[in-house]
Formats: sequence, structure tokens, C-alpha cells
Amino acid sequence: MSAPDSPDNLGNRLLTRLDEAARYSRPGPGVTRLYASEEHRRLLPLLEEWMRRAGLEPSLDAAGTLVGRCPRALAGEPALILGSHQDSVIEGGKYDGMLGVAMPLLALEALREQGREPGCAVEVVAFGDEEGVRFPSTLVGSRAFAGTVDPAVLDGRDTQGVSLREALATLGVDASGIAEVARDPDKVLGYVEVHIEQGPVLEDEGLAVGVVTALTGIERHHLRVAGKAGHAGTTPMHGRRDALVGAAAMVVEADRLLNDLDDLVGVVGQLTVRPGAVNVIPAEVSFTLELRSPRHDVRLAGRRQILDAMADIAAARGLSLTTSLGYEAEGVDCADWLIEALEQACAVEGQQMRRLFSGAGHDALAMHDLTDIGMLFLRCRDGLSHNPDEAITVEDAEAGTRVLMALLTNMSTQRQAQKSA
Amino acid sequence: MSAPDSPDNLGNRLLTRLDEAARYSRPGPGVTRLYASEEHRRLLPLLEEWMRRAGLEPSLDAAGTLVGRCPRALAGEPALILGSHQDSVIEGGKYDGMLGVAMPLLALEALREQGREPGCAVEVVAFGDEEGVRFPSTLVGSRAFAGTVDPAVLDGRDTQGVSLREALATLGVDASGIAEVARDPDKVLGYVEVHIEQGPVLEDEGLAVGVVTALTGIERHHLRVAGKAGHAGTTPMHGRRDALVGAAAMVVEADRLLNDLDDLVGVVGQLTVRPGAVNVIPAEVSFTLELRSPRHDVRLAGRRQILDAMADIAAARGLSLTTSLGYEAEGVDCADWLIEALEQACAVEGQQMRRLFSGAGHDALAMHDLTDIGMLFLRCRDGLSHNPDEAITVEDAEAGTRVLMALLTNMSTQRQAQKSA
Repeated sequence: MSAPDSPDNLGNRLLTRLDEAARYSRPGPGVTRLYASEEHRRLLPLLEEWMRRAGLEPSLDAAGTLVGRCPRALAGEPALILGSHQDSVIEGGKYDGMLGVAMPLLALEALREQGREPGCAVEVVAFGDEEGVRFPSTLVGSRAFAGTVDPAVLDGRDTQGVSLREALATLGVDASGIAEVARDPDKVLGYVEVHIEQGPVLEDEGLAVGVVTALTGIERHHLRVAGKAGHAGTTPMHGRRDALVGAAAMVVEADRLLNDLDDLVGVVGQLTVRPGAVNVIPAEVSFTLELRSPRHDVRLAGRRQILDAMADIAAARGLSLTTSLGYEAEGVDCADWLIEALEQACAVEGQQMRRLFSGAGHDALAMHDLTDIGMLFLRCRDGLSHNPDEAITVEDAEAGTRVLMALLTNMSTQRQAQKSA
Repeated sequence: MSAPDSPDNLGNRLLTRLDEAARYSRPGPGVTRLYASEEHRRLLPLLEEWMRRAGLEPSLDAAGTLVGRCPRALAGEPALILGSHQDSVIEGGKYDGMLGVAMPLLALEALREQGREPGCAVEVVAFGDEEGVRFPSTLVGSRAFAGTVDPAVLDGRDTQGVSLREALATLGVDASGIAEVARDPDKVLGYVEVHIEQGPVLEDEGLAVGVVTALTGIERHHLRVAGKAGHAGTTPMHGRRDALVGAAAMVVEADRLLNDLDDLVGVVGQLTVRPGAVNVIPAEVSFTLELRSPRHDVRLAGRRQILDAMADIAAARGLSLTTSLGYEAEGVDCADWLIEALEQACAVEGQQMRRLFSGAGHDALAMHDLTDIGMLFLRCRDGLSHNPDEAITVEDAEAGTRVLMALLTNMSTQRQAQKSA
């Protein structure tokens, strides 16, 4: 390993590349590069150059995903796919998404420089859209791979009235072929995605990397507490049915329960008071409750406990409570053989790691419908993401790249072992 | 006393009059009659007729207040002024304001019918604006009486761009004379206002009437709780600084303290969450806190206790809290001699009563700058006001009118006793 301050150190090379990619952004703080935008289009030649240096042949598919294939993949061998997304949120950072594209490309290039080879056919992909910022849809590229994309998403329009179909045409692709993007599962060994953690766990424990065991399930509830409005000066305290006091007690209690329960996180992120006048007792409060857990049973038990506690609070305060489940997505597990392969690669490189779950969604969520998935998390400063201040260290960039190199060289054996199991 | 179902029963006569006045309203639910509006203008002849039947000579002053004076007042004797306001909120009820105009006029008329006379000179007034709905100003008529009105309020405009000066011209008055409306305190004995309670206290205790001891002081605070935003899926529960959880704990604690403290009411009526996304930990919550008490010392001690408790909650949760006092109006006491005069009048009529304070502001608040004030509250159904469902019973209407008749006939003695005290 070269010294961290050497320009040919892998960490430095990776950060330099990510700085370069970050220049393809709308003006303003941080990185703003939306799906099928001018910035996306202008970025593609840079990624193609990285792919060629990694020994991959680039091509753009009908969903705007840039795919780099090694000669063995082009010849028809089942391939391990690595990648992530090129797009950012508005005023996002340099690492969310792009890290998972740049790191495997650099790992492949470094292997070539050392005269080594991956143990299996490899593809690296840069999906167009994981953040879902510009169009009503999200995960279009990875869903197209998995064969689960609804072609109707192509008619979705951005706030300027441009359809996704029209926007993809500016990348030079004909979106009408999106259904043919779907991959044959027999030609895919698995999917590995590297991503910044977007949370503080690795930083708190002093670890550069973590291996993901599962991607969280998510549910979102809409709740409404109804009390009775009244003149705030003339209604005695003891006769009130104040919807905000009740909702506030529910928020506090939900937070208390969530702090007690393992493998479950949640938040009340939106809350609105009506009538919302300085001198009127609140008659109605609407709020959201989002819960996330990698474990279905934990999420359902937590939901029950929290909603029951809220109902008790409403009853005790003479308020009515209505709840509705507006959105629910099941979590998915990472494949044991990929978890173990990533752990072995960490061990080879002497990287201490921990297992953790992903509280956010990723392209891997869509790819799970196609193939086995695995994810490697990299420590990020202050757990920040979706923020211009996203940061990773040069040491962690080097460590992650080396773990991927070890994973790639060990791969065929791993996959063989899993198949025979 | 005639039977409650007789049309010449005073209660029936009063309710009939209030129903008639309620017709001078914009179309729609309840009563909508704003200051210096077409409905206000059309109402005036009806009130003038009531005044003449009560033996008063009506005239409209430069603030749009309709004033009825008895011959003794016209001759220069110091007068007791009774009255309230003619305006309503949007979609308000029949009784808030107009009760305090119609009831003393009917009491005077009934005395005449019985060949009896008030013990002192009397005026009855219908102020134009107590609700402050149409123009940026409020209490313009009563402040003009007290000599505390700022003539700049005449340039305030409604949402249609009409100035108060222009609107008053449609009533046929020249607002430029507003400064000359100010009364000579030596020519005023006191001010008595009858009003529906706007709260449930009298109803809960089975009383038709209550005598007000003080009008509440009011303070309004703006508070801001700042925490740290974060991805709600990837940030562990124990590391969060959720501004909404903190603010919710403050709302619950404020309510708990207010329920424990006497002579103090308060409410958090507005609350806004930022960024307000379903999946983002709230970074900032802004909310209002309004406190009311008739006692200055109680309000200040309560304020200190509540704001200290909120600061403790912020500190314990790693949040910052900033508070600012945006509005403060001192409460005013009713004059002992008018409290006692009203109590004696209740006793004469065999009406059980209780003392209570007014949690709302009234024209009496402005009149306190001119003269001694007294207020009589009448029970209202469900404590409702500012609502088309405002209601009083025919029995209570009769009882209140008779209490006013007793007050008026006893008045000179009372005032004499107070003066010599």
C-alpha cells in the first residue's frame, strides 16, 4: 500500500475521480445532477473512460444506465454486477451513488495494473436514477434490469413538463426498448453495491467498512387527532380537548418506545395543526409516522405497540384518533454467500468490520428481484448524506477499494461454494 | 314576570330583537357583519329605532359608533354608559356584541313602560369594531371614546384596498373628526358591558349570570426549537436531536403546568415543523405560546415556570431553544363599586351569580382608560362564541334584562356611595 499522501495511492486516486465527477453539476452548493439531465449526459464520457481503463466495454441501455462489460461477460459468461447510481439529490454530495460506480471501476483498473484478474465475469453499472428527484418514478434503471419496471413511468413528467421518454432521448437512447433491458437471471451471479453509510454507526465504532445484512422495510402512516376548538382565553384548562397536546403526547411516547425497541427506527416528520391560530385551542392535528426495520416481525410488533399507545393517549384525553397505512415496502435480505464473501475480503485486507442493516433504500432493493445482493458500507463523516458536506477519508477510500479487489479475485470460488451448498 | 312563552316576556322580546339584528348579515352561515360595511350601515336605522323607544336620542360619531343619549345626558349630566359592539367575526353568532347593545336598550324601554326611571343619566353605545376582522386595527370606537385612538388607523386598509376612512364615509360620517370623539372623564360615571361568557363556567355551575372582576392580561411568545436534521432511516434512535420530539415534550409539559396553576390559562395554537418531510428527522420547530391571567403576578410567575421547564427539556435533549415575547397586554380590573352594584342588582332579582374573570378582551378594555368599568356575563350554550351556533335561553335573556333594570334604578345611590368612599 502506498503512503496516503502519495498521488498514486488508491484512496487519493478515488477521491480525485470523485472530485472530477462532482464537477458535472448544476451551479450552486454541492452536487445537483438529476436523471437524464444535461449534467448526466455530459458525465457519461468520463465514466466511459474509467470503464475502458478498467477493461470494460461501455454501452448505454434504454433506461439510461451506463453498463461496462468485461470480455468474458460480452462472451456470455454469467457476471457479477457491481454498481450504484449517478444521480444526486438537489444540493447533494459527491459520494452518495457515485462512490459505488467509481470504486469498483478503480478496483478493476488496479487489478489490471498488478496483472491480476477477477475470478469471474464482471459488469459495472451506473444507474440513472435512484433518488427519484426529477420524475415521479424512482429506481428506473435497476428495475429495468430486474424486469420490474412499468413502461408507463416513461410518460411521467418533471416540473418543466418534460417526460422521462423525452429526457432519455437527449441522452441519445430510445426508451421504447426499456422492456428489453431485463436481464436473464441465469446470466447474473449477483449484485454488489458500495455506498456511504448515510448514518453514524461506523464512525461511532471507529470502523472504515460495514457489511450490510438487510435493507430495511418501510411503512408510513397518516394519523389524525381530533379534539375540540375553543377560545383559548375563555375555556378553562380542565375542560379542554386540545388536539395538539394529545398529538404531542403521542409523539413523545412513540419516540420513547422506539428508543426502547431494537432493530426499529421511526420518525414523526410532518405535523400540521388546525386551525393554527395563536389564540384558538387546536381542533385537529395531522401527522405522519414512518417506521423502518430490516425485520418484518419487529416492524409489525413495533407498529402495534406504538399505535396502541397512541390510541390509549387519545382515549385518556377525550380525543379521537384515526390512522391509515399509506405506504409499505417489505425489507429484503442480503445473500449469505455475498455477506460472507465481503467479510472474507475484509479479513484478507485486515479491515475490521461489523454487520449492520441499511435504513435507506438503494438500487440493490430493485436488483433483489433479479439476483442475490450484497452491500458494502463505507464510513462517512458525521453520518451525513444528501448534503454538500458529505465526506469520506482517503484512508477509507483506499481500504474500500482494496476490499473490492479482494472480493473480485476471490469471487469464483465463493460463488462455486454457494452453488454447491 | 310574564310567562316565558308569552310574547311580551322580556326574554322573548330580547331574542326577537337579536334575531332581527342578525338579518343584517352577509349571506352565508351565522352572522357576518363587519365594521363600516354595507350591513353595518343598513343596521343603524334599526338600532336608532330601539334607542328612541328607550328614550334616547341617537347620533353617529366620527368613529361610526352609534350613541344614544337620554335627555339628562344631553343636558350635560355625567352619564353611565352601557353598550358593546355591533360587529361580528366572519360566520359568527347573533349574541357576541349585539347582546350588550340590545339588552340595555330593552331594559330602558321596559323601565319606561313601567313608569320608572334610571337613577342617573344614561347613554347606550354600539361600537363599530371590537373583533378587528376587517381592518388592521381593533377597538377603534371605544378607543376614540377614551381618547387613545391613533388617527393613523384611518389609513389602514381591508383586503380589498378600502381604507377605514373611506369605509366610514359610506356610513355618512367624516372620520377626520375622530379625535374630537374623546370624552371628558368628568362627564362619565362608568361603563357597563353585558356580554355572553364565551366559556363554559356559568353553564357548568348552573348560573344565568356572572359578574366580571377583571379582564385578562395576555402575552404571546414565539418559540423556536432547533435540533439536527438527518435521514430518518439511517440515524439510530439514540443519536438523534429531533426538534419535534423536544417541542412535543414542551407542549405536554406546558399543558400539565397550566392545569396545575390557578388563574392562568394558555395554549400552543400554532406549530410548524421543518423540513417537514415524512422521512427526515425534524430540524426545527416553531410554535406560539399564549398565556392569559387577570393577575399580573400570576401571569409572570407562570411564564417563568413554563419557559424554565421548556429550557430544561431542550437542555436534556441537546436542543437549542430561543424564545421571544411578541405581544403583551396588561389585564385591567373592574371597579369594585360596579362589581358590587351588579351583584346587588342580581340579588334584587334573586339571581344567583358568581364572580369570574374575562379571558377575552372587550370594548371595556379600551374604556378602562376613560372610566371605571363593570361587566355582566350571560351564560351561553356550550360556551360557544364566534360560531353560528351561539345560543342563549329566553330565561337567561329575561334574567339579564331584569338585572340591568335593577342596576339602572339603583345607580345614583351606588355612584354616590363610591364617590363619598
